[in-house]
Amino acid sequence: MGLKNSYPLAKKSIDNPHTIVEVNGIKIGGKDLAIIAGPCAVESEEQLFTIGAFLAEKGIKILRGGAYKPRTSPYSFQGLKEDGLKLLKSVAQKHDMAIITEVMDLSLLDTVYPYTDILQIGARNMKNYHFLKELGKTDKPILLKRGMDATLEEWLLAAEYILMGGNKQVILCERGIRTFDHTTRNTMDIAAIPLIKHLSHLPIIADPSQATGNRDIVNSMALAAIAAGADGLMIEVHNNPEAALSDGPQSLRFDQFSDLLNKLKLMGTLNGKEIPDFQLKTQFN
Amino acid sequence: MGLKNSYPLAKKSIDNPHTIVEVNGIKIGGKDLAIIAGPCAVESEEQLFTIGAFLAEKGIKILRGGAYKPRTSPYSFQGLKEDGLKLLKSVAQKHDMAIITEVMDLSLLDTVYPYTDILQIGARNMKNYHFLKELGKTDKPILLKRGMDATLEEWLLAAEYILMGGNKQVILCERGIRTFDHTTRNTMDIAAIPLIKHLSHLPIIADPSQATGNRDIVNSMALAAIAAGADGLMIEVHNNPEAALSDGPQSLRFDQFSDLLNKLKLMGTLNGKEIPDFQLKTQFN
Amino acid sequence: MGLKNSYPLAKKSIDNPHTIVEVNGIKIGGKDLAIIAGPCAVESEEQLFTIGAFLAEKGIKILRGGAYKPRTSPYSFQGLKEDGLKLLKSVAQKHDMAIITEVMDLSLLDTVYPYTDILQIGARNMKNYHFLKELGKTDKPILLKRGMDATLEEWLLAAEYILMGGNKQVILCERGIRTFDHTTRNTMDIAAIPLIKHLSHLPIIADPSQATGNRDIVNSMALAAIAAGADGLMIEVHNNPEAALSDGPQSLRFDQFSDLLNKLKLMGTLNGKEIPDFQLKTQFN
Amino acid sequence: MGLKNSYPLAKKSIDNPHTIVEVNGIKIGGKDLAIIAGPCAVESEEQLFTIGAFLAEKGIKILRGGAYKPRTSPYSFQGLKEDGLKLLKSVAQKHDMAIITEVMDLSLLDTVYPYTDILQIGARNMKNYHFLKELGKTDKPILLKRGMDATLEEWLLAAEYILMGGNKQVILCERGIRTFDHTTRNTMDIAAIPLIKHLSHLPIIADPSQATGNRDIVNSMALAAIAAGADGLMIEVHNNPEAALSDGPQSLRFDQFSDLLNKLKLMGTLNGKEIPDFQLKTQFN
Repeated sequence: MGLKNSYPLAKKSIDNPHTIVEVNGIKIGGKDLAIIAGPCAVESEEQLFTIGAFLAEKGIKILRGGAYKPRTSPYSFQGLKEDGLKLLKSVAQKHDMAIITEVMDLSLLDTVYPYTDILQIGARNMKNYHFLKELGKTDKPILLKRGMDATLEEWLLAAEYILMGGNKQVILCERGIRTFDHTTRNTMDIAAIPLIKHLSHLPIIADPSQATGNRDIVNSMALAAIAAGADGLMIEVHNNPEAALSDGPQSLRFDQFSDLLNKLKLMGTLNGKEIPDFQLKTQFN
Repeated sequence: MGLKNSYPLAKKSIDNPHTIVEVNGIKIGGKDLAIIAGPCAVESEEQLFTIGAFLAEKGIKILRGGAYKPRTSPYSFQGLKEDGLKLLKSVAQKHDMAIITEVMDLSLLDTVYPYTDILQIGARNMKNYHFLKELGKTDKPILLKRGMDATLEEWLLAAEYILMGGNKQVILCERGIRTFDHTTRNTMDIAAIPLIKHLSHLPIIADPSQATGNRDIVNSMALAAIAAGADGLMIEVHNNPEAALSDGPQSLRFDQFSDLLNKLKLMGTLNGKEIPDFQLKTQFN
Repeated sequence: MGLKNSYPLAKKSIDNPHTIVEVNGIKIGGKDLAIIAGPCAVESEEQLFTIGAFLAEKGIKILRGGAYKPRTSPYSFQGLKEDGLKLLKSVAQKHDMAIITEVMDLSLLDTVYPYTDILQIGARNMKNYHFLKELGKTDKPILLKRGMDATLEEWLLAAEYILMGGNKQVILCERGIRTFDHTTRNTMDIAAIPLIKHLSHLPIIADPSQATGNRDIVNSMALAAIAAGADGLMIEVHNNPEAALSDGPQSLRFDQFSDLLNKLKLMGTLNGKEIPDFQLKTQFN
Repeated sequence: MGLKNSYPLAKKSIDNPHTIVEVNGIKIGGKDLAIIAGPCAVESEEQLFTIGAFLAEKGIKILRGGAYKPRTSPYSFQGLKEDGLKLLKSVAQKHDMAIITEVMDLSLLDTVYPYTDILQIGARNMKNYHFLKELGKTDKPILLKRGMDATLEEWLLAAEYILMGGNKQVILCERGIRTFDHTTRNTMDIAAIPLIKHLSHLPIIADPSQATGNRDIVNSMALAAIAAGADGLMIEVHNNPEAALSDGPQSLRFDQFSDLLNKLKLMGTLNGKEIPDFQLKTQFN
């Protein structure tokens, strides 16, 4: 915790207490409780339009969805690639949503850039320093997932690589680390949230879907993350999780996601963060 | 998660959905949000009476304090032993509190038993199966801390050893696991809380002091644990943490503990657990 | 590695470069390559006499075998207890072997003590500090297994607890640590061997059976441990591993154990340690 | 271990028992004990020519050296980049050595390709699947380091990504995994070596420099790796480790490297692998 000097640009200071990254009217890192939702992977027009319509009705303003998917096995579904990006764009435009999707490799940046509002750096790329440097030269917000083997200092140093390039709109995302216990897919390190708030001015959100791999506990962990001070959540939602081509077991059903929103509303007053008004109007009618 | 058959006595079932362990009027595992608090180690009469008076005023009904301390180094303070137990008893009697303290070895059970209301099994003993069997023959509630290298299944099997002996009053306590990241003392596995609630009927509380080793984030993690569904908390509190003989950095100051109680009151309605009325009367005046 | 001052009794120094623990003519920590072998658990008279006769013929002078077994599940075979100890004694006396067996709890010390030549402290008890202190008062050699979650410093501090009691005959045993990769039962930390040799004067042996849980690689790992500087090995051998009541998959068949001895003989000249002459006479005819 | 079906191209079978990758006359995966050596990073002309001359005299045929360095901090030395590649080429040509150097990002492949004989994929890129696919289309041998958080199955699936592209010359390299114990930089998983030999036909070498981060134990671990069945070693050697710009503490001094070669010669007969004759002529005069 005394290592702040190793990342002068990412560290919290009196002059730089907290960065706010604004995306589609949501102030991430400010008073808004940011909620990003969508399927793990874009699978088809029907799937994405169904999920998009549901989320829009709930007031969600940032749509997630993987078009290029990093999969452990080369024999697993690898994503719809540029067709997936086009579907994201169609759904987002229809419902006035912003898009977040992963840039899996630097060579794909030019393809992905025009379609997305937030450039996602996946956990597997958090230590690809050349990639981080190059993304630091872009002008769109970047969501930097924590590597599954990364310490907090390594994570903040990865952010430092981006900040050095000039891009100041970095959002951190805790998504679980790898430990000996495989009861959950990863071990969600909730303590990283208040620690990052002590160490850095960057906003931090949490991804309980990836962190747990188990929809039965996603909502409990989402609430825990917010109780611990997270600025927002990234949640996987699917219209038919059992048939999902990627990570079905961790995707919420629609009713589970609605339940989460209701609980988050109650939680709001606790940590001083609230789901923005313009969302609430839709969500809770 | 499909391993319930390996621990028939500890598993949750329709017939046995949740066990309530009642201690000094607090229903642990029921609607009460149980709060156990006190110093890491009993150090002196002055220390314990000061802390005890503060906690009593706040309505705390269960006092923690180590008399025999498992310390990594033989050159560290090892606890006041039976003198510490006597001090615990004096303070508890004065304020009508129950006591929880660790039984560090089976050979110390006869000494510790008369003084305590809850027998604590430390993380380092969670896999001492002979010890678990023998404690299963006792008639007082047992708090079973998770081993820092234990999977959830191993933890529930440790509980099974106790339950087989006939003692049904087992309370689980998540206190962090050991991972590669040492920014915190341990990695608090908050996901264990909702998972245990799915798998077992036993109550589960959380110890954010041991789990983090850092008072600056103890309250955030306490709130996270309750948001995730924990039945209660075990919190280290000290009148002068900087001078503590054991684990000072993780002990809350009095003002921090008061702040935690206020936040927990707000949290109460969220998960359906509340600090018992008879405590509230005192606490929030 | 600069922490030697924390364990003054265990640390290596010019005045105390290496401790030799002599058991049944084998100088553990000296020029002998010590080989301890036997079944994981004592199961029956027939089993132990068959294995004992084989090992005696191979020149093995120290017989291992568990009479009280720490098992993760209370429903697994827990050992023959004192009957197992009696069988160990019979076989050892017949073949002029020494015995090593685990003391699972301090309350069992009086029972186990008369039967055994080396008191084994299991990995699950390495942090049971009260137990370590009490075993420090005994006068027989102690084998201290590394806890599966123990750092090297914690391990040497555990040895320090024993040494403080006056018992100087401590042998360390690397048996694998718990990591994220479960391809093997544990991850055998071979680097601990040369590091301990730098830090401490205590002898160190390796247990590739527990460390890997897989007989197909036990011999490779045994050779690796000796190449890295270990003073000896503890190997699980069974006359019928498929029918073993405990840890069959990691027990060597007789032919595999013979093969290991032949390879160790070749290895001998490399690290300056050799299987003692009086064993070689038998083994390699 | 029963997961061979998930990587049909990488798995060992009767038809495909072992792949030999030949580089500069060394048959990696065959009877040769392959030794790759050189500095962590190329730092200057003087440094590389000094080290190169020493290694050439010792008979080393494959020179390592980083020109683009993945560093945790953006403020650390990042490598000489193309100037480093040119230096590697000069030294290699002078002494008839082959070169291995890392391709840190796909965008650097065209720059690095002409200079190197083996394309190294670093641990931090082992899960960059797009990168793996593209490198599978190249025609030079690839050294695939294990990710510090990768299971054996994930590692072999990463190799499968490359093999699917058509490049069959894949060499695996164990370089340590991340665990709770930070006494060494990483925990060298020696058991991975015999396990990979059971599961896959691909050659596997070991990098004890990265795995331990501590030159005092590099030689012990190098011997352990060979004793366990490794096909070769990658060793960091420096003419002045104390002044190294990258990873000095883990680089061998010249005398330590000479000592290692002498010990490896003795080890040779043990596992049936030998340092090739044409190297021996030089090395051991």
